[in-house]
Amino acid sequence: MPSPNIAGTQRGYVIPIGGAEEKLDNPEILAKFVALCGGEDGVITVIPTASQLDDTGARYQKIFDDIGVKKSFSLPITERADAQNPSYVKTLEKSTGIFVTGGNQLRLSTILGGTPIARAIRQLNAQGVHYAGTSAGAAIVSQHMITGGNTGIVPTEDGVNLAPGMGLINTIVVDQHFNQRNRLARLLSAVSYNPFLIGIGLDEDTAAFIDHNNVFTTVGSGAITVVDPSDIEYSSMAEARTGDALTLLNVKLHILASGGRFDISERKAYVK
Amino acid sequence: MPSPNIAGTQRGYVIPIGGAEEKLDNPEILAKFVALCGGEDGVITVIPTASQLDDTGARYQKIFDDIGVKKSFSLPITERADAQNPSYVKTLEKSTGIFVTGGNQLRLSTILGGTPIARAIRQLNAQGVHYAGTSAGAAIVSQHMITGGNTGIVPTEDGVNLAPGMGLINTIVVDQHFNQRNRLARLLSAVSYNPFLIGIGLDEDTAAFIDHNNVFTTVGSGAITVVDPSDIEYSSMAEARTGDALTLLNVKLHILASGGRFDISERKAYVK
Repeated sequence: MPSPNIAGTQRGYVIPIGGAEEKLDNPEILAKFVALCGGEDGVITVIPTASQLDDTGARYQKIFDDIGVKKSFSLPITERADAQNPSYVKTLEKSTGIFVTGGNQLRLSTILGGTPIARAIRQLNAQGVHYAGTSAGAAIVSQHMITGGNTGIVPTEDGVNLAPGMGLINTIVVDQHFNQRNRLARLLSAVSYNPFLIGIGLDEDTAAFIDHNNVFTTVGSGAITVVDPSDIEYSSMAEARTGDALTLLNVKLHILASGGRFDISERKAYVK
Repeated sequence: MPSPNIAGTQRGYVIPIGGAEEKLDNPEILAKFVALCGGEDGVITVIPTASQLDDTGARYQKIFDDIGVKKSFSLPITERADAQNPSYVKTLEKSTGIFVTGGNQLRLSTILGGTPIARAIRQLNAQGVHYAGTSAGAAIVSQHMITGGNTGIVPTEDGVNLAPGMGLINTIVVDQHFNQRNRLARLLSAVSYNPFLIGIGLDEDTAAFIDHNNVFTTVGSGAITVVDPSDIEYSSMAEARTGDALTLLNVKLHILASGGRFDISERKAYVK
């Protein structure tokens, strides 16, 4: 469950990005995130834990610097002991925006899960600090996080692997590199396990800017595929054998290019 | 438009198969087609025109022979002049089932389109002769036939190429090798051109057995993905620029594994 809001505060934006966001030539998504965080006066802290490259944090600091942010930090958290470090929590508390990089989402959940850093991210977001994460950093916003599964269109009984995520929003399951890696099958598998979930498939260079009312706007060059299983009349998930194609009747699908909007609470799509 | 029914006759089954149907070890789809055509007393005529291999016709005759069919023919139609041959039309008229092989669907439309053979296929099917076609032979049943397009999930303005097909059924557009080749994007592009169409995506070794009431049953090891655009509330197709991702709100999706049924006229999915 997301942290409860403190009276009088609004949750910060939650911004999952589908990976491979434009970084140099008109970095629309990152620039909009920076603008929300206060522009040049914003303070952005990068968490590069998902990546196993040493320079990922510094690289994003440079990108944010190029966009005009005067002050940014990168937290070199590479193991669970680092995620207990009180000085890192203090740095987070000075931030107006938190940015979590790509890599392996299981590094994020295994290293950050249940630590003071994870608690701080959830509490700060509930208090108004904006969160953006790309690829692995997008997957981790789900309460039920996809860690692997089958590619293609047709879902199967064993078509997706889930693990507990950070749960900044608990009614969506996020997938990334969606069109590029043909991930509808695994997202359909995930939402058909329990249709209270809404599936959000993010293309590369595409982000869902989710506001405090749980309404998101699509930003970027690709699309967001929303899989809404609320009206499913029949699913063979419970009887299917491992590897069997599933029967699913009445899945609602929305494809949202730039500017398209979706109300997660009301399960309703809009344009502009 | 399909040929009009003659009073007192029922249209034969129309059976598009998604390609790569099992041929040797329990060939479920081909055996069901043979049973509809009268079993060992059925007369099946193979049209191998889509293929550029010399032995495709003989190969299918052998398969039907193995299933128990006593009498089969193959029509060696490789150019338009062949499709005018009155003796080939006479052979078709003796058949209880017509089987059109895979290959290139543009060979079927360019060689058979507007010839006595194409007319005979349409008229005989309207009079009760069953039609089955795999891959290219499945694509050609559509009035608006897919000949190429983009792979992936997200449709684009220029995401599919269409050509006139044989039109045994005029409200569906059929795609094949659907899950295996990630063809949702091009099927969504096709139905969003004009949402009177219903998209039928056939996996390999999977067939839609469409009866004279336009209700089909799924047969085979994969699934059929039905894309029903009837309830689309908004489509950006008319304004999109070439290559742009589309916005499409409220597409209905059904995934139908073996036994799943769909009523094309009523646009309603059923199980068993």
